[in-house]
Amino acid sequence: MEHFQIRTDLALEATESIRKQNAEHMSGVMIEEYDAMEDVHISKVRITSKNAAKNMGKPMGTYITLEAPGLQESDEDYHREISEELARHLKSVLPDIEDEKSVLVVGLGNRDVTADSLGPGTVDNLFITRHIIKEYGKQAYRASKMHSISSLVPGVMAKTGMETSEIIKGVIKETQPDIVIVIDALAARSTKRLNRTVQITDTGIHPGSGVGNHRNALTKESLGVPVIAIGIPMVVDAGTIVCDALEKLSHEYEGGKGSLDYFRNSTDTQLSNMYVTAKNIDETTKRLSYTLSEAINIALDMGQEGQT
Amino acid sequence: MEHFQIRTDLALEATESIRKQNAEHMSGVMIEEYDAMEDVHISKVRITSKNAAKNMGKPMGTYITLEAPGLQESDEDYHREISEELARHLKSVLPDIEDEKSVLVVGLGNRDVTADSLGPGTVDNLFITRHIIKEYGKQAYRASKMHSISSLVPGVMAKTGMETSEIIKGVIKETQPDIVIVIDALAARSTKRLNRTVQITDTGIHPGSGVGNHRNALTKESLGVPVIAIGIPMVVDAGTIVCDALEKLSHEYEGGKGSLDYFRNSTDTQLSNMYVTAKNIDETTKRLSYTLSEAINIALDMGQEGQT
Amino acid sequence: MEHFQIRTDLALEATESIRKQNAEHMSGVMIEEYDAMEDVHISKVRITSKNAAKNMGKPMGTYITLEAPGLQESDEDYHREISEELARHLKSVLPDIEDEKSVLVVGLGNRDVTADSLGPGTVDNLFITRHIIKEYGKQAYRASKMHSISSLVPGVMAKTGMETSEIIKGVIKETQPDIVIVIDALAARSTKRLNRTVQITDTGIHPGSGVGNHRNALTKESLGVPVIAIGIPMVVDAGTIVCDALEKLSHEYEGGKGSLDYFRNSTDTQLSNMYVTAKNIDETTKRLSYTLSEAINIALDMGQEGQT
Amino acid sequence: MEHFQIRTDLALEATESIRKQNAEHMSGVMIEEYDAMEDVHISKVRITSKNAAKNMGKPMGTYITLEAPGLQESDEDYHREISEELARHLKSVLPDIEDEKSVLVVGLGNRDVTADSLGPGTVDNLFITRHIIKEYGKQAYRASKMHSISSLVPGVMAKTGMETSEIIKGVIKETQPDIVIVIDALAARSTKRLNRTVQITDTGIHPGSGVGNHRNALTKESLGVPVIAIGIPMVVDAGTIVCDALEKLSHEYEGGKGSLDYFRNSTDTQLSNMYVTAKNIDETTKRLSYTLSEAINIALDMGQEGQT
Repeated sequence: MEHFQIRTDLALEATESIRKQNAEHMSGVMIEEYDAMEDVHISKVRITSKNAAKNMGKPMGTYITLEAPGLQESDEDYHREISEELARHLKSVLPDIEDEKSVLVVGLGNRDVTADSLGPGTVDNLFITRHIIKEYGKQAYRASKMHSISSLVPGVMAKTGMETSEIIKGVIKETQPDIVIVIDALAARSTKRLNRTVQITDTGIHPGSGVGNHRNALTKESLGVPVIAIGIPMVVDAGTIVCDALEKLSHEYEGGKGSLDYFRNSTDTQLSNMYVTAKNIDETTKRLSYTLSEAINIALDMGQEGQT
Repeated sequence: MEHFQIRTDLALEATESIRKQNAEHMSGVMIEEYDAMEDVHISKVRITSKNAAKNMGKPMGTYITLEAPGLQESDEDYHREISEELARHLKSVLPDIEDEKSVLVVGLGNRDVTADSLGPGTVDNLFITRHIIKEYGKQAYRASKMHSISSLVPGVMAKTGMETSEIIKGVIKETQPDIVIVIDALAARSTKRLNRTVQITDTGIHPGSGVGNHRNALTKESLGVPVIAIGIPMVVDAGTIVCDALEKLSHEYEGGKGSLDYFRNSTDTQLSNMYVTAKNIDETTKRLSYTLSEAINIALDMGQEGQT
Repeated sequence: MEHFQIRTDLALEATESIRKQNAEHMSGVMIEEYDAMEDVHISKVRITSKNAAKNMGKPMGTYITLEAPGLQESDEDYHREISEELARHLKSVLPDIEDEKSVLVVGLGNRDVTADSLGPGTVDNLFITRHIIKEYGKQAYRASKMHSISSLVPGVMAKTGMETSEIIKGVIKETQPDIVIVIDALAARSTKRLNRTVQITDTGIHPGSGVGNHRNALTKESLGVPVIAIGIPMVVDAGTIVCDALEKLSHEYEGGKGSLDYFRNSTDTQLSNMYVTAKNIDETTKRLSYTLSEAINIALDMGQEGQT
Repeated sequence: MEHFQIRTDLALEATESIRKQNAEHMSGVMIEEYDAMEDVHISKVRITSKNAAKNMGKPMGTYITLEAPGLQESDEDYHREISEELARHLKSVLPDIEDEKSVLVVGLGNRDVTADSLGPGTVDNLFITRHIIKEYGKQAYRASKMHSISSLVPGVMAKTGMETSEIIKGVIKETQPDIVIVIDALAARSTKRLNRTVQITDTGIHPGSGVGNHRNALTKESLGVPVIAIGIPMVVDAGTIVCDALEKLSHEYEGGKGSLDYFRNSTDTQLSNMYVTAKNIDETTKRLSYTLSEAINIALDMGQEGQT
């Protein structure tokens, strides 16, 4: 029994131990891994049966993870090649996106906390079309096919007094999008994943995830439309850092194992209100927001090439 | 026939010419004017019959205007005495506010345009209680009466692709507030009113008003709950400046009258996408946002005194 | 005698009337005009004698103006082709830039006023190298030639209590750059120039220019190092709008001329604290900042190509 | 020999162990402790001899620490009573402040990283007078005594390419202030101190301190004028969190001691680029900035009372 719950929003981390065993031989689980390009690793996990979902501890659906150490570094082009790779995977989980769709993109998180501003920052750079199409028709873009794209930055509960899910539900009822894409800064289990791993899933967002710790689900079941979630781990819970360090110790040093077990069984309320973040989080968030917004623009045919 | 429509969001300005005639003798119109304190002038216009509404060119309801030249200047206390005066008038138009109510405060406008950020800035300083009451009950505040206060910054259509009214309608349906308060930066007809005039009305917001030019109404009819609007003129339309100057000329100089008429009949598309704003708009917006947020906090018993 | 001084920071506007006459035949003035590409017009004015400077009412030096209506519109690539064109002209006025230089880039203006934030916004996207070179040498970049680039956002006098020139002078004395580049949002004489005209000059910045109205010069004489100024008109003085409208009237309508003369001779103190700006100034400033920062990055061999 | 250096910017923490022993009996050290009001604890350490400075591992000078758990919580009045208490102590270390002085207030840190924005945020709310006095004289304030107050936000080295000390030195040389006050977000050794402890010292800022880890000293010796430093711990180094947890374990659990020693002797490069911060850091920073700016305004006779 563990009092100190190690928290991760990354399917990759959650399934890591299982995968290491024999998930690939498990019925109802399909795993695919490859290098999309140099230093860009893709892993896709598809959970296709209820039984497998139970075994994996994750809802049925597709989980795509892109790992690129280069994302941590500055790049003149804001890592356009990664945006394009992400766009391909995003397209693969957007239902019937070859047809014209109306898509609502939601930037979760708190604009005023640098590490939690990935969602709002991504939405700022999107190509928005819904209001133009409603007023002038898609001929305004001289295009035969044009998705209707809208966006929302709902803010955080401490400031709005409302659950994020309440705001999104209301806006969906009123504006009736076909698909919702939600962007969120995630909490990772390990500092190794920070700012270099992008997760795309068609299972939406589940309670307790995200830097701001959403309490209500944002899923097809709760919102009534397909929900694609895109996330990048930007923080690690402070308690996790201690567990990580202790775990590392337990491999290298005999006494460490006992310390780890002891710590996990204790509760440190101070640490639970804190998180760990990189010192250059401002540059990182700005860069990753741009990479994600371009990925979405390209996937929705609004990227540089798409528009021509 | 005028092609160049002089635009004002201030009832005071709209009714000025009528009032000068004999609105006070008009049936269905009640006008009250007084100095609340030194350099703080209050005028209340109540339009109580359909006929009077038609004559005044304004919906039936109450329009309270506070004029305080001092608002343009810095003040250590952020003009607390004006916040308190505003709170009194705000309370007078909040329906049944002696009972416990749930109130949604909406900050209209564009956070990234200084002159249009009054609404979002005001909402940033509000005392929000809804989420605490929902989770812990009002005993969390050790109070016997506690309004449930939530807030929303919907953003602007160019960024969201949605009408502000669509977002607000959806959130109202989902969270069911008793009352909505909307804050907006207004466009005035004259530079004389800028940054020193506060208007409170129980008629909501009508199409074409605000710096961002909302196209849909935010009223009890459109939203289904009483809508109180608070606004401060922060800009003047560029075309209006020219009319103003010409009008002034036409009093002082003979040829001016013809120029004014000529200009009004012309259309200057360049000017219609521009507005005039004060050079120190950053300090002004910061200060006025704080004065308004305190007024709302006090009116909802969340101000410094109220809480004790 | 005019009381109302029409103010412009654009050499192009200042010299327009003179050029129309016969500046091109004036000794000490060289004028060159051409289309660099479709919808991108370049004009270069070189004033090479004291006499010509006096006649033109401008200091001796080079004034390059790029006019591109397309700058007013959104572009996936942030108008990279214009950044490259600007970089070429910028290089032509950076003294001995083929050698390794230390360059201080100064972003003038007020970060909190959208229309005045062009300078700070440009500096945010620059590639800064000085601290890396000082600590690790230029081998950190695996380059044989590397300019040492630093940047400064001095803020505005109302907030710092200091003249911008005092702050810059102090920093120059302490860090000894070879060249200073200053970026500023300008006031134009006409709305026609707004957000689409870039001026580059090797004469620095003169008293009274810029949205924030700098009072002290930033020139080679005052700072002791060559000063290259880059500016884009982002606002028009409110008084100018009225003059513009009256001037237009005076061509179309007989009475207008008298009104114009009358207005110029009057003084409107209200208008002198105001300016006119485009309604979508947030998008515009963000876009133009990026175009300028890329131009500087490319000119200093830090652009995408330059670095390879 | 410890590879992992536990870092603290708080004199209180550094001297804690010594004080517990017998610093109060040490010659050259004067310690005073008292409760200024309920839940506001003051401790003053004066190090008056070189020998004592060596023993304490801190430069000679005065260190005042205010501890107030209430600072972590929201307060309608932004904790004005604490601002006033801080002002008293600040005045006690400002040399000859009964005379008219020119004071430069420097807000250190990175505006774009929430946890590091305490300095810039504080400076934003200061009452600045230098430019007005220079232009109009102190009669502009109808005051017989008026300090000349200026402010600077130098930015961080990663963005400017310059050491903060270079920028400040240059500005001091140019504008010749009598006193410099620097505000900085500090790194604490323990999460217990975060966001509730204010340190005022007349010894300035020493290399390696602050969230941004300044490398050069900001002291009377380096800058040539008295330097008063005000700081609040806003982050804890990630490595420290692990040490803290291990230390706690080592008291409760036998194996913990060995783990602590082992960890201290290891080097974790990942953790050294990270820090731990509170989840509600945006609200906290906004509130504490305001409390500090009011403390400085009051100390310099610019607070609400002071001005009357």
